[in-house]
Amino acid sequence: MLDLRAATSPEVAEALARGDAVAVLAVGAEEQHGAHLPLSTDTVMADGVARRIAEGLGNALLLPPVAYGDAWNNEGFAGTLSLSPDTLRAVLIDLGRGVKRLGVAALVIVNGHFGNREPIALAARALTGEGLRVLALDYPGMERIAGAICDSTPAAPTFYHADEVETSMMLALAPDLVRMDKAAPEYPEFPETFGMEPMLLSTFNRSGVFGDPRPATAEKGEAFIAGIAAESLGIIARFLSRPA
Amino acid sequence: MLDLRAATSPEVAEALARGDAVAVLAVGAEEQHGAHLPLSTDTVMADGVARRIAEGLGNALLLPPVAYGDAWNNEGFAGTLSLSPDTLRAVLIDLGRGVKRLGVAALVIVNGHFGNREPIALAARALTGEGLRVLALDYPGMERIAGAICDSTPAAPTFYHADEVETSMMLALAPDLVRMDKAAPEYPEFPETFGMEPMLLSTFNRSGVFGDPRPATAEKGEAFIAGIAAESLGIIARFLSRPA
Amino acid sequence: MLDLRAATSPEVAEALARGDAVAVLAVGAEEQHGAHLPLSTDTVMADGVARRIAEGLGNALLLPPVAYGDAWNNEGFAGTLSLSPDTLRAVLIDLGRGVKRLGVAALVIVNGHFGNREPIALAARALTGEGLRVLALDYPGMERIAGAICDSTPAAPTFYHADEVETSMMLALAPDLVRMDKAAPEYPEFPETFGMEPMLLSTFNRSGVFGDPRPATAEKGEAFIAGIAAESLGIIARFLSRPA
Amino acid sequence: MLDLRAATSPEVAEALARGDAVAVLAVGAEEQHGAHLPLSTDTVMADGVARRIAEGLGNALLLPPVAYGDAWNNEGFAGTLSLSPDTLRAVLIDLGRGVKRLGVAALVIVNGHFGNREPIALAARALTGEGLRVLALDYPGMERIAGAICDSTPAAPTFYHADEVETSMMLALAPDLVRMDKAAPEYPEFPETFGMEPMLLSTFNRSGVFGDPRPATAEKGEAFIAGIAAESLGIIARFLSRPA
Amino acid sequence: MLDLRAATSPEVAEALARGDAVAVLAVGAEEQHGAHLPLSTDTVMADGVARRIAEGLGNALLLPPVAYGDAWNNEGFAGTLSLSPDTLRAVLIDLGRGVKRLGVAALVIVNGHFGNREPIALAARALTGEGLRVLALDYPGMERIAGAICDSTPAAPTFYHADEVETSMMLALAPDLVRMDKAAPEYPEFPETFGMEPMLLSTFNRSGVFGDPRPATAEKGEAFIAGIAAESLGIIARFLSRPA
Amino acid sequence: MLDLRAATSPEVAEALARGDAVAVLAVGAEEQHGAHLPLSTDTVMADGVARRIAEGLGNALLLPPVAYGDAWNNEGFAGTLSLSPDTLRAVLIDLGRGVKRLGVAALVIVNGHFGNREPIALAARALTGEGLRVLALDYPGMERIAGAICDSTPAAPTFYHADEVETSMMLALAPDLVRMDKAAPEYPEFPETFGMEPMLLSTFNRSGVFGDPRPATAEKGEAFIAGIAAESLGIIARFLSRPA
Repeated sequence: MLDLRAATSPEVAEALARGDAVAVLAVGAEEQHGAHLPLSTDTVMADGVARRIAEGLGNALLLPPVAYGDAWNNEGFAGTLSLSPDTLRAVLIDLGRGVKRLGVAALVIVNGHFGNREPIALAARALTGEGLRVLALDYPGMERIAGAICDSTPAAPTFYHADEVETSMMLALAPDLVRMDKAAPEYPEFPETFGMEPMLLSTFNRSGVFGDPRPATAEKGEAFIAGIAAESLGIIARFLSRPA
Repeated sequence: MLDLRAATSPEVAEALARGDAVAVLAVGAEEQHGAHLPLSTDTVMADGVARRIAEGLGNALLLPPVAYGDAWNNEGFAGTLSLSPDTLRAVLIDLGRGVKRLGVAALVIVNGHFGNREPIALAARALTGEGLRVLALDYPGMERIAGAICDSTPAAPTFYHADEVETSMMLALAPDLVRMDKAAPEYPEFPETFGMEPMLLSTFNRSGVFGDPRPATAEKGEAFIAGIAAESLGIIARFLSRPA
Repeated sequence: MLDLRAATSPEVAEALARGDAVAVLAVGAEEQHGAHLPLSTDTVMADGVARRIAEGLGNALLLPPVAYGDAWNNEGFAGTLSLSPDTLRAVLIDLGRGVKRLGVAALVIVNGHFGNREPIALAARALTGEGLRVLALDYPGMERIAGAICDSTPAAPTFYHADEVETSMMLALAPDLVRMDKAAPEYPEFPETFGMEPMLLSTFNRSGVFGDPRPATAEKGEAFIAGIAAESLGIIARFLSRPA
Repeated sequence: MLDLRAATSPEVAEALARGDAVAVLAVGAEEQHGAHLPLSTDTVMADGVARRIAEGLGNALLLPPVAYGDAWNNEGFAGTLSLSPDTLRAVLIDLGRGVKRLGVAALVIVNGHFGNREPIALAARALTGEGLRVLALDYPGMERIAGAICDSTPAAPTFYHADEVETSMMLALAPDLVRMDKAAPEYPEFPETFGMEPMLLSTFNRSGVFGDPRPATAEKGEAFIAGIAAESLGIIARFLSRPA
Repeated sequence: MLDLRAATSPEVAEALARGDAVAVLAVGAEEQHGAHLPLSTDTVMADGVARRIAEGLGNALLLPPVAYGDAWNNEGFAGTLSLSPDTLRAVLIDLGRGVKRLGVAALVIVNGHFGNREPIALAARALTGEGLRVLALDYPGMERIAGAICDSTPAAPTFYHADEVETSMMLALAPDLVRMDKAAPEYPEFPETFGMEPMLLSTFNRSGVFGDPRPATAEKGEAFIAGIAAESLGIIARFLSRPA
Repeated sequence: MLDLRAATSPEVAEALARGDAVAVLAVGAEEQHGAHLPLSTDTVMADGVARRIAEGLGNALLLPPVAYGDAWNNEGFAGTLSLSPDTLRAVLIDLGRGVKRLGVAALVIVNGHFGNREPIALAARALTGEGLRVLALDYPGMERIAGAICDSTPAAPTFYHADEVETSMMLALAPDLVRMDKAAPEYPEFPETFGMEPMLLSTFNRSGVFGDPRPATAEKGEAFIAGIAAESLGIIARFLSRPA
């Protein structure tokens, strides 16, 4: 695995020469995560999982993560910064064209933020049309693992934000950035039209936390990372073995 | 100074409440830098200088750096990945609108890559038209400092790429990413139409190095960073004191 | 309720003069639906549900439906025709601006096709930013009703395509367009990477049917339409009663 | 002839297999037509003529009509809703690419609204450049027939809007949507700069009618439809017989 | 009248200070005009007419002409160069915004090329929406004058290209650019689908001439220019006297 | 050399048939140049130099100049009119595609305005990607010649605007447009952040002049034109002799 932040150009050339290099790109966000997690939580997590996946692959190029995503619905909280969905798609298409030019076998996108899903899907469709195979992963297995090891319940099904799941992963990946003394639960009441109209989360959520981060541990976080990476690697293996 | 990677949303809210927060954004590149410097050199350098500037400001918000730039003319070397100029401009406009929404007094862009200059200038023009003050810095003082402390000459006037200047700064900022044993000089002959027609640097440069990185030292790097930051802070102070 | 296909301009002026008119817009698709349902199934269904909703509202303007959607993943079957997601979004923004100009209180979008969800959401975000309230409905209550009255199981959770649900609704809305003699079940095996990479449904689905349309009846269809309309009307009432 | 609203995917596949299928697309508008004709008049008319043309062709695919056009200059009257010219062009290009993918021999566009002409022409130019033959028909023969059978004169040469011509065609196609009791003439005075500057028709036209709809009859309408279809079929035959 | 090619900035400032300055912009084309007229014919003509109009106005700013238009259908002949319709519209919008910023009372566009009509109309619509009054003139009175003074008939009604009309105007405006010894008539047969499908004129026109340029004289040309200018001035006077 | 304003289509066809035609395009600006030079100064100069270059080439097509550029930073002075950088780029790409279709060997752009540099560079990059060779010249040799023959110093290094250099060239090219009686020097103080933030020149420059135009003579102007043309021809010769 080559981390393209640390790697040099000749090293990349050598990896590409083997003919089976896979590019791995994490896409995160700069988004409020309550008082106990940093704004870069989604980027740190996606990059951490992407790194684990890259390590598990034979010949992976780990790209610098995209540190900004479409965090529109968290703009009611200070510190959130977004790319528009169109800009994010353009970034991903540019990077996809770049790795295609390099000659990789495929691009695996590790998405760490819900709002990025559709721009990623549209970029993937465009890139596939240009001849690059693209696989977009949204933490496969996370829901299953959460059900198995979490002590708290999520604020809504599969809605993990600044809660036990994310806090655990951050404790495993970047403990210095977590302030457990500020971790406090909030189970907001979702408006009935949530998901049906554009809505800032801050209109019904006070603290930025969804659920209860207090039971989080680094061990649980490592279980998430290892489990998601393992599931991802299985999916990637089958993805690569299918004819394009 | 708040590093918006590590900071939390309430911390940003507090900084903004003071009314004089300045956003500082580094813009780098993912670009070949020879066999001895990493692909992320321009991002590491811009982020390092931006951090030093942010530290010198009273109330600065240091944004996560933009890790990709327009490195088109280095695409002949493996590992270079670019945003198109239009995409880069869109990214900067989105982020500028974001910090304007937050309520900062101004946005200072610390650019680490020549190819980013025009997208930054166009984004600045657009954002200024929308009411955000934007200052774009291209390592002010670098040429003067290089003249004063460098032992080698640049490959061309003000053309610093994987040379003594950049290698020194990387030795100061991220010594683990520098492989001095692979540092070797190259003084390519520039084609007469360089700058007059689109041209990949790889058509006349073999190693990716322009100049001689061998005399680089961390001390020189620190002198560059400190000198550029000091000069930048003076410019910013006068920029902020002018009426908008 | 005014059907804007049949209504005249003075009638619309009169409805608008009351000050509380709500625009209702169905968005469908031109997409294969197996051998027993017409290509316009999604449009017929969305228009039928939208009409029922409009009838239940005090002062509704029922717009002509958008007859084309983003049916990209069904383009492997003959007859499917798509708008690109960007074009669909542009259509919706234009129509939203149009009803805003007319002076409606809000726009309710009744979506009949999964692939339209994100373009609708992005158009809604843009229009909300321009001052128009927009609510997007994706057949609320359908899953609950299906669980209660269907005799067959869906091919995948909440995946209703040319199955008992859609066939029942078409039997209720446009029986002449349904050929029950050609209705045949198919329960395709979904590839593991379904939803993770751009994928034509025709690569793993032979007939265009997902599930079993044979138990469909017009009575079940009417139950769906009535139930979805009732649930929608409740949501709309609460949506309209909230301050903008 | 297959009406792609009612047809199924296998039926389209069969028609396409013959190799000579022609797509026929009506483009209408949602636009005021006085107090006696519905807002969808242009769509109903274009669809009616397109259907007649499709019936006359050997192997035609009649697409669902585009129900919205560029009706900008009628936006001074309630109920008019427009696509911008750029959006309309994008819709037509998407649909053209769609039928090209299906493998039709050509696309015939039946335009029912003056404001759509240029977007159609630009879409046709773009699609022709992509290898699809496109013919755009603007009711050929209408002026000649009007001269022969109409009892009233138009408000301006070839300007037919809510007048005897359109009202007759609507009486033939959708008599339930016509309210002859509300039909009243208006011969507005056209400003000298009409056609030279952007101008809402409502600035000089009070009722939305141009001319005199009162002499309209269904028989005249049928004569228009039959005559335009016959003339169109002759043009299409020669268009298809020319080498691409 | 100020010709903005020759005028200086202080002179423009003085004209604007009077408060009633009108901008006059000619839009031409770079397009084949047979063997006897130059490629810039449409620009020379539009500029000549625009100058005459500007001279007749009290306080006019005559802009440098736009020397390229949308001459797509003449691209089958060597030397024709086009702006796309979108680019031409963008140029006109930029210039309209520019004169609006200067503070003119209105913008009068003198169009010299048929293919520019729709881009001009769309730019005018956009600019009107931004608060600039725009009038677009297409040689008003030309048809009437041609009927009165021409000795030849046009190749098609109102179709004047490299014929007696244009050649006369060029003889009046730029006799050095006309080679009457090469003037020869051509009356091509127009395909039945002309105007209904994208079609290069070169597919049915051999010489680039439509009609008969041989009876052209400078006197006739002067009659055209004077007559069109007079008619234009009347229209402009009434345009300006109308409330915006 | 063919001037495509005066040339006819058959003449262009003949020049192209030789197979080695080079297109030469001047890009100017409509921009304030003080009280003694016309707004079209940059266009007149670029066109004059381009003509001299075209005359020196064996088989050149001199296109009509682009008379508007990106003069944003002079919009504080009356009479300046700009194309946006995106519009200017689009114009150049359209014209580049046009000359590529004609079959020229290359496109040489003669730029007469600093603000046009980046749009030209981006257009050149795009066109090169489409297979057209493009060379962009910014008055090569001007600085050297100025150093040799000018009696005044520039207001800033390589900053020539309405000064001795430009006034001399205008005296050589269009003496009727120069009013030496109004020529007066100004050596403004440049703000420290000049070039670092969007800034109108009028905020620190009173007269529109940078430097001292008074020593200008037509002889010096001719020396500039001849010297720049000679240097340009050398560069073009080597550019054309390199393999594409």
